[in-house]
Formats: sequence, C-alpha cells, structure tokens
Amino acid sequence: MTPFQTTRRVEFGDTDMAGIMHFANYFRFMEVAETDFLRSRGLNVSWYAEGMKFGFPRVAASCDFLKPARFQDVLTITVTIEKLGTKSITYRHEFTNQHGETVAVGRITAVLVRSIGPDRLESLEIPAQMRAQLEG
Amino acid sequence: MTPFQTTRRVEFGDTDMAGIMHFANYFRFMEVAETDFLRSRGLNVSWYAEGMKFGFPRVAASCDFLKPARFQDVLTITVTIEKLGTKSITYRHEFTNQHGETVAVGRITAVLVRSIGPDRLESLEIPAQMRAQLEG
Amino acid sequence: MTPFQTTRRVEFGDTDMAGIMHFANYFRFMEVAETDFLRSRGLNVSWYAEGMKFGFPRVAASCDFLKPARFQDVLTITVTIEKLGTKSITYRHEFTNQHGETVAVGRITAVLVRSIGPDRLESLEIPAQMRAQLEG
Amino acid sequence: MTPFQTTRRVEFGDTDMAGIMHFANYFRFMEVAETDFLRSRGLNVSWYAEGMKFGFPRVAASCDFLKPARFQDVLTITVTIEKLGTKSITYRHEFTNQHGETVAVGRITAVLVRSIGPDRLESLEIPAQMRAQLEG
Repeated sequence: MTPFQTTRRVEFGDTDMAGIMHFANYFRFMEVAETDFLRSRGLNVSWYAEGMKFGFPRVAASCDFLKPARFQDVLTITVTIEKLGTKSITYRHEFTNQHGETVAVGRITAVLVRSIGPDRLESLEIPAQMRAQLEG
Repeated sequence: MTPFQTTRRVEFGDTDMAGIMHFANYFRFMEVAETDFLRSRGLNVSWYAEGMKFGFPRVAASCDFLKPARFQDVLTITVTIEKLGTKSITYRHEFTNQHGETVAVGRITAVLVRSIGPDRLESLEIPAQMRAQLEG
Repeated sequence: MTPFQTTRRVEFGDTDMAGIMHFANYFRFMEVAETDFLRSRGLNVSWYAEGMKFGFPRVAASCDFLKPARFQDVLTITVTIEKLGTKSITYRHEFTNQHGETVAVGRITAVLVRSIGPDRLESLEIPAQMRAQLEG
Repeated sequence: MTPFQTTRRVEFGDTDMAGIMHFANYFRFMEVAETDFLRSRGLNVSWYAEGMKFGFPRVAASCDFLKPARFQDVLTITVTIEKLGTKSITYRHEFTNQHGETVAVGRITAVLVRSIGPDRLESLEIPAQMRAQLEG
C-alpha cells in the first residue's frame, strides 16, 4: 500500500506537568491519523448502511515512546497497514517531529463490526471492495 | 436545598506544562460533580423511559479560576442549584482544595430534553416529582 | 482589530455517548484558536525571556452551546479581542460549522504573568509593543 | 508482591459516540491506578529530592480491549508488577467491571529518571529500598 501521512500540532492542553505530551494523547493522535487515512480512501470508522450501524472499534492499541514531544511540535504521523486480516486491520503509526526524529511508534488493531441489537455487535469479514480501498 | 459535596483528586494527566490542572479539566470535574449530585437524588444525566431517550444536555458553562490546583490536590466540589427554571437547572460548583482554599467557582446550565427523532431534541418542563427530588 | 480564523475538525474522541462533541472540548478548541491567534501575531501563551518564564494563564472561561457539533464537522473559530485590559485579554470565540451555522460562542480571559519563584506568579501590565501586536 | 486494587467510575465525558468508554481513556485510568499503587507504597511518579527532579516517565503502553465499558460502570483495576527491571517497571493492569467481567488488560513500562538539565533526562538504577517498597 501507499503510506499515508497526516500532521498534528501538539497543543498546550496536550502536555502534562512534565512539560511534554501526555502519553495517553498519542492514542488520540493515532485515532486522528487512522480516521484521516480511512477518509482519504473513501472509508470511515463509523457509518450507517442498510439501516444498520457499522464501525471499526479497536481491540488493541500500543505505543513505544522514544523521545518526548513538546508544545508546538508538529508531528507527522505515517500510517501503514501492517496486517490486513479477514476481519481486522492492524495499523502502524510512526510519529516524527519537525526535526525528522522518530518520537513514537504505535499500533492499533480495529475489527469490522455491525450492531445487531442494543449493545450487541457482530464481527464481519472485510468485503473485497473495502480491502481494495484499504490497500489503496 | 441541601448542598451536595463530592471529592476528586487531580491526576497527573489532568495537569499541563504550566504544572497545574489544565483549565478545561475543571469542566470535566464539574460534570462528575453534577452526575454524582443527580445520582444522590435518584436522578441521572441520560436515561431511557417509555421507549424514549431523555437527558440534561448543557447549554452553558463557565468557570472563574482563582488559584491553581496541582497534581494530587484533593478538590472538594460543593454543588448547589442556583436556579431551578421551568425547563433548566443552573448549578453552582465551588472547588476547594485540601487547605480549605477556594480554587475555582463554576456554573453549568442544563436543559431537560427528550429525543424525538434522529438528531432532534425537544425541551421539556421539569416535572413536579423531579423538582422535588432536585430540591432534596 | 482584524478578526482571526482557524478551523478544527471534530474527531471521534471529541464526542460523547450523546453522539455530539463533549462540552468540555469546546474549551480545548478555544485554547487552540487562542494559541493560533497569538502565533499569527508573533506571540505565544508561554515563553522564556531574560531568564524568566512568562505566560497568559486563564482566569475565566465560559461558553454558550447553541447547536450540537458532530463527528467530522469542521468548525471555524473566529477569534476577536473583546476587551484588552491593562493586564488582561478577553477573547471572544465564535464557532461556526460547515453549514455556516453558529454552534457556540465562548470567552476566555487571560492575564499576563511572570514566574517570580516556585509556584509564585506576578501579573504584569501588557507592554505597548505587545498591545500593538495584539491589536494587529 | 501483593496485588493492588483501585476503582474508578466511567464518567459521561469518558464515553464516545459509540456509547462506550473511549479507548484512549483506559490509558488515563491505568495512570491513575499506577499512581494510586505507588502512593500506597509510599512512592510517587514525580518528585524532588536533593534539589533534583525524579520521575517514572512511560516508555511503552499497551492495552487489549475485551469488552466495552459503559457510562457509570465501576471498574476495578488490579495492578501487579509484571517485571521489575534494573531501571524499569512493567505494570499489568486488569480492568474488571461490577459484574466481575474482565473488560481490558493493559501494560505500562516506566523508567526511573532524573533531570540533569533543561530537557535532559538520565535513567537510573532503581535503588534497593525502592525495590523493597515496590515489591511490598
């Protein structure tokens, strides 16, 4: 696949008292990158079709923090699909700062589901057309 | 009404690079206090009844920040109903720290609504029994 | 002054179970707009000069929520200085969505301070040059 | 070691438009549990000693999301030290809900550091007394 890139600035409210981006916010940045990636492929993380609700809830997320990111750093997030399973996608997110340094590397695994009742989800095989869009 | 009190500790992730609680988090703390208050009166901020969804969305929120709150401060939030309107409630939230100092004073106004279709809300008069519970 | 505009998309993680942007996140968006505005004028919300730390901590914030903002809405935030006091700035933030509807109107008041010791701040008069930059 | 438990309620603002706790908030809950654990052992995540700043910044975090957590669920977080390295601690956090179901299992690895200059950190061996406190 063609790697996808998006950028996001570290805002004042993203930092903590250690003076650096709070570690939980990397996961929010990954979500933004994942959503931007899907949008660039004509897809989404949550949608309605045929009267049903579909989506890509996460089943796993991880991140290695290599260097601190600071207020006003502009982070480039490079998204690649590390594994395209039958029902799931594992994304790899590499964060680099404006100096070209790798700041963090994270992964998110999301599963295709549809709602089949209040609070009931069913996982689905990713259809061929969606696979083609994902593989871009 | 009898004032209601709840406490919440300032966590590491609630701070920002200035070393103090980030100002937006006071609004999250107010929401916790509002929810705890409603729960103590047998009420909620969001519920289903007669097949419909009801709730108390906020229409206004404000806060004056008087002193910084720091990591590990235990804030006591005193909730009073400042105004009980026909369809709305205005809460006053006073934040005091473990030294008895007033740290912040905020207000939230919430309106009773029910969903009457996708993305459509209708405001409602607060029924007599709910008023009695609120006035506690 | 010339009004300043910036845009920000409502991300999945900005929403709550009511399906709309959580009210506390408007304050985070206002902070982003305030920082972007200051940056556009060659200023900042936090900086070092002459070996001292300066900044614009908030002393008050408020917001009226007029219409819900939803996932993927692109909000334009128009920043104006409503009042430029001797030591403080009051910003007005108007949020409009991609349909031109006003979603929310908020205000933040920030005071110019410098650190004069651990956990000690001193408020300062806004110098003439900074006033000129702010009035742009 | 004796496992440590703490509880935290899922607040309205912790949810997202899918009606469940947003995945990034599990990392905030883990941080609260980690801090509570350290406090219970007479330790902290950030402190000053001998004129220097010490702390336990995270170098890695991960979480598997097994079941959704919903508004008002009371999550019990059981903290165990999975690995106590020379300079680092790896915590395991198991989240169970009020029905006794395991909701998520996460890990955080933190390294003992001290500040040795602006923006410069040095990793340190965990001293014997601290190891004893951690092993409780």
